[in-house]
Amino acid sequence: MEKLVLISFLSSIFAIGYALYLRWSVLKMETGTPKMVEIYGAIREGAKAFLYRQYKTIAVICTVLSLILYFVFDLGAGRALPLTAAAVLTGTFCSLLAGFIGMDASTSANVRCTAAAKKGMHEALTVAFRGGAVTGLAVVGSSLFGVTLLYYLYAMLLPGIPAGAKPLDPVLIVGLGFGASFAALFAQLGGGIYTKAADVGADLVGKVEAGIPEDDPRNPAVVADLVGDNVGDCAGRGADLFESITGENIGAMILGFVLWPVYGIGGIMFPLIARCAGIIATILGMAFVRPGPEETNPMRPLNMGLYASTVLCAVAFYILVQLLLKGNMGLFYAAIIGLATSVLITKITEYYTERDRQPVISVAKSSMTGPATTIITGISVGLESTALPVVLLTSAILLAYKINADPAYPGLIDPAGIYGTAIATMGMLAITPMILAFDVFGPISDNAGGIAEMANLEEDVRKNTDRLDAAGNTTKALTKGYAMGSATLAAFLLFSAYLTEVTHLSGGKVDLLRDGINIAKPEIFVGVFIGAALPFLFSSLAIKAVGRAAFQIVEEVRRQFREIKGIMEGTAKPEYGKCVDIVTKASLREMVAPSMLVLIVPVAVGLLLGAEAVGGLLMGATISGVLLAMFMNNGGAAWDNAKKYIEAGNLGGKRLPTGEKNPTHAASVIGDTVGDPLKDTAGPSLHVLVKLINTISLIFAPLFV
Amino acid sequence: MEKLVLISFLSSIFAIGYALYLRWSVLKMETGTPKMVEIYGAIREGAKAFLYRQYKTIAVICTVLSLILYFVFDLGAGRALPLTAAAVLTGTFCSLLAGFIGMDASTSANVRCTAAAKKGMHEALTVAFRGGAVTGLAVVGSSLFGVTLLYYLYAMLLPGIPAGAKPLDPVLIVGLGFGASFAALFAQLGGGIYTKAADVGADLVGKVEAGIPEDDPRNPAVVADLVGDNVGDCAGRGADLFESITGENIGAMILGFVLWPVYGIGGIMFPLIARCAGIIATILGMAFVRPGPEETNPMRPLNMGLYASTVLCAVAFYILVQLLLKGNMGLFYAAIIGLATSVLITKITEYYTERDRQPVISVAKSSMTGPATTIITGISVGLESTALPVVLLTSAILLAYKINADPAYPGLIDPAGIYGTAIATMGMLAITPMILAFDVFGPISDNAGGIAEMANLEEDVRKNTDRLDAAGNTTKALTKGYAMGSATLAAFLLFSAYLTEVTHLSGGKVDLLRDGINIAKPEIFVGVFIGAALPFLFSSLAIKAVGRAAFQIVEEVRRQFREIKGIMEGTAKPEYGKCVDIVTKASLREMVAPSMLVLIVPVAVGLLLGAEAVGGLLMGATISGVLLAMFMNNGGAAWDNAKKYIEAGNLGGKRLPTGEKNPTHAASVIGDTVGDPLKDTAGPSLHVLVKLINTISLIFAPLFV
Repeated sequence: MEKLVLISFLSSIFAIGYALYLRWSVLKMETGTPKMVEIYGAIREGAKAFLYRQYKTIAVICTVLSLILYFVFDLGAGRALPLTAAAVLTGTFCSLLAGFIGMDASTSANVRCTAAAKKGMHEALTVAFRGGAVTGLAVVGSSLFGVTLLYYLYAMLLPGIPAGAKPLDPVLIVGLGFGASFAALFAQLGGGIYTKAADVGADLVGKVEAGIPEDDPRNPAVVADLVGDNVGDCAGRGADLFESITGENIGAMILGFVLWPVYGIGGIMFPLIARCAGIIATILGMAFVRPGPEETNPMRPLNMGLYASTVLCAVAFYILVQLLLKGNMGLFYAAIIGLATSVLITKITEYYTERDRQPVISVAKSSMTGPATTIITGISVGLESTALPVVLLTSAILLAYKINADPAYPGLIDPAGIYGTAIATMGMLAITPMILAFDVFGPISDNAGGIAEMANLEEDVRKNTDRLDAAGNTTKALTKGYAMGSATLAAFLLFSAYLTEVTHLSGGKVDLLRDGINIAKPEIFVGVFIGAALPFLFSSLAIKAVGRAAFQIVEEVRRQFREIKGIMEGTAKPEYGKCVDIVTKASLREMVAPSMLVLIVPVAVGLLLGAEAVGGLLMGATISGVLLAMFMNNGGAAWDNAKKYIEAGNLGGKRLPTGEKNPTHAASVIGDTVGDPLKDTAGPSLHVLVKLINTISLIFAPLFV
Repeated sequence: MEKLVLISFLSSIFAIGYALYLRWSVLKMETGTPKMVEIYGAIREGAKAFLYRQYKTIAVICTVLSLILYFVFDLGAGRALPLTAAAVLTGTFCSLLAGFIGMDASTSANVRCTAAAKKGMHEALTVAFRGGAVTGLAVVGSSLFGVTLLYYLYAMLLPGIPAGAKPLDPVLIVGLGFGASFAALFAQLGGGIYTKAADVGADLVGKVEAGIPEDDPRNPAVVADLVGDNVGDCAGRGADLFESITGENIGAMILGFVLWPVYGIGGIMFPLIARCAGIIATILGMAFVRPGPEETNPMRPLNMGLYASTVLCAVAFYILVQLLLKGNMGLFYAAIIGLATSVLITKITEYYTERDRQPVISVAKSSMTGPATTIITGISVGLESTALPVVLLTSAILLAYKINADPAYPGLIDPAGIYGTAIATMGMLAITPMILAFDVFGPISDNAGGIAEMANLEEDVRKNTDRLDAAGNTTKALTKGYAMGSATLAAFLLFSAYLTEVTHLSGGKVDLLRDGINIAKPEIFVGVFIGAALPFLFSSLAIKAVGRAAFQIVEEVRRQFREIKGIMEGTAKPEYGKCVDIVTKASLREMVAPSMLVLIVPVAVGLLLGAEAVGGLLMGATISGVLLAMFMNNGGAAWDNAKKYIEAGNLGGKRLPTGEKNPTHAASVIGDTVGDPLKDTAGPSLHVLVKLINTISLIFAPLFV
């Protein structure tokens, strides 16, 4: 075991170290004109204000959580309180650390990307990609570090495990996943409310009331808007995937623990070592992102890196299966299924959301008959886009299970088959650093474009950043598809871990591994139904929260215009930080109701209807949450890109030849606005909900049996 | 048994007879001015054209279905082909007969309602309510007639049932439910596409291109539009509830058959006798709908009738439980739970969709900041509106089960408890004739208003019909809530019947009553997930179908304007029937893809993954279908009534004091248009999907085991 732990430690430190190296390589690049530096300073100041406030809030919540956990674990579940509380704190801390490194890097890379765009698109692309890779590696590295550290420490600390006996039950570090989940909920839901509230608030007062253009530095909320891009896509998605890989690691370790008689410590440590291999493979793959000076399509080098990482991961999985899993080829095939799923799900998402594909064009064309048809077509595209991913994800789960399960297994669910689905999930999550680099690439190039526009740089620079920005929109949509797919697999894994845990806790009295979760039982049917309704209510609350937070921004901007003389003349600097602080406070306050819902409902169902009904609830919430999230993410992205399709000069472009505004474009703008809170607030928060509800149930399981 | 069959027969004939009496009492009323008669004639002509074409299509489909069934049942499932085929035909025929009587009555009542409105609102209300009651009684009466006839005939025909032995297995008449389901899918989906396509098509060419006002008789599509109101709300919802009560009756009989050792023939026939009691109770309750000449609120007398029927039903259930179910009070409480659920679900729907309640006002207020916020708020209201009904429906199922189940029952699902949920469903469906009368009241008063407007009647008449129309909007929304709730319970019942049937068919080899449907098994998880995705894809197809059918109407109206000289001058009559025929053809053609999806997916899942996975599919489709339907129905109704709230003079009304159009109103119109295909096409069709998918699985069960 010690050797495997050491490898895991070294890899995690290598990942964080390489992230810091990339950060350094970005930081040493030039920052451009004083005007650019001024804007960049304001964005960084805003991001710091957000992080400061957010960390304060999370500290409070963590204390409350520890008290709740003390109460729960005092009920005699036989697990030591300080260890679980420490695990929750570690999970939260690691998630926040990764978020901090990532935010710091992306808010440093934006201005340098703008400066590099003066030399050419390929230079700018390299900066944006490296900036994104910092987040990718920091997230994966700190997750691996936390899991390895805790598992090793607890194995050392806990008495009663004689040498050579069964190792420590990984369920003891599940608090880590729970801490990560809670941090993710804050980061994703809070960040989602933040980014859209700032966006809408800035537009309403700036463009409509004061009559100043978009991204104008005189608007006190403009920085909050630019910060929002980082907060939602960088910190939010980072925490989302941090949670996925942490939850997946722990869930897979719990399942590996069940198979200890078969694979020994190798089966338990495999998830960690596979993560190490993923880190090495993606760092090597990053070397393939090497755009030449004559490159015109930013997606080409990015895709090169993705494919290279995927192939390297496949090779690594083959070797690791030989070394740690007794060469069981079924598990290798499962890993390949996971890798293939991750590539295919991004392709499907691409089809439904890319600017020049049929679905987006159909939304754009329907704008010719006004906003109502734009909305209707977008809704129908979003609804349709759920079908193929469901077929893909369910096939992946079923295949990975079937290949590895023993057909003659007497019980309901063969742990060997479930371990197969766990390995498939590992395969899917292996390329996470690359996918996250893709994702954070988005806000960096978006910010770079904004800085270029605000600093009045020459036309060529903006052309270069615009091309990156378009690619960034695609990569952002891909990441959401990937995050949603991995959330599904992670949730299925955590669900299986829940069944294992309840059976274990009840001492076999409630044997869910034998009885399963039987939907024909009325209690469980009720649990599934309530679980399925939860994402609907949650989304409704999240969407309403955006509206209320935006209203507070509007008030603050009006106040600054009224009280600070000289803003409009450019002689006084608006208080950017104040706006940022207000939207931060508002968004963190607004997320209380939805997050309490996620916490209270499973616990209430568990206390009223028992552990089995909670199992039903988990499945209901997972399935309906995933479907709603796809509907919202893809519908929203289709509206967004339909607008971009028209702005690219199709269907009349932004303005008619007469100089009048094109009503087709106006209709598409309404579609885009409708999609914003769906795709950037409610949709991505649902990924987190799906996983959080599973870790909550795992943590509170002792209460239900 | 013979005595119970006789009671059932006589009640069904009494219901149909009373419906015909009400029809006669409406027909003998005066029809008003020649202009009114002309418009009314056109609407009837259109309705006939629709029914003619629709019946032709259904005849073809029925033949194909019979062939498929021959093929299936030839596989040796042990059930006689001619009987099942005859059952399917009977179900289809009864559903169509009820639809015919209802459509005929409502298209006769509309003009008489207008004429009566000259004398006062109370007179008009009486006509509209009686017209609606015709459909209500015809639907319930013909369903009861069909079920009783078939069950009695088959019991006579089938050899091998010695006197005193266990009676005929009601599963043999399940084809009746399947026939009813297919007819309902055509009526509801086809009708839904029809009504919205005609609406949008008429508006686009009439108002926008030709510049003639809404409801102008020169517009060739205007009659199709008025026909559409009847087609969607009257025929569509009638078939929907026909399916619910038929499916519920047969499902409950199958469960009663399981309990034959306990209750004997009484348990099997109870659902039929309970229906008889419901018929008598609602006919008596209708006497309470007696508006005085000074009545100002049409909802007051309607609610009086509803409450009276509910109380009478409760009394009747008490007596029947004593007579037929050995005085088992648990089953009486279950019936009360069902009755209470039906009243509460209409109240919840009322809260979310009524014009002067907070949710609708919030949508209206959000229109002040433009169409995007209107849409976002409506989406959030729709999402939120799913929560309370889910809590209500699941509580009803669970309570009815728990009260009647034996806590010490050794198996997974106690048939006694499931029979309790069946009785709750009967309680919920007992007041169906009243609810349907409420529903059809809507299109009649809507049509009455249209006729008043087109015939240029005095202001007072229109004021009276407008008040009825507003009440009609509320009752239509209530009925959807009720239909959705009853679809949930009926689906749960059919699901239980499916478990029973598969166990029976496989001779215990696949014992779903013992094993249930275990969502922890990967195959079943996959089934649930695919089932849950089905309503999303189905809705997408339905919404797109509306767009394509509307396009064909636009083409036809343009052709008539071009080729028939004198339309615009009023010297030539447009070919209303042609427009109606085209939209009929288009809507029936457009519904092929969505309905094939509903047919093919469960059969494919059954063949590939087995009978258990189909069980999972049923649950997934039911839960996600119900949630999506509520989201669409309530969101759509909220948008509709937010527009009406503004048109009533709030938030600036239709026009500003300057005479300019009020942009707030314009935004609310966009919301209304977005909601139309959701609430009138996709949403209600999902009720049918939820039940059809259950009857399909029951019919094809022999293929899966």
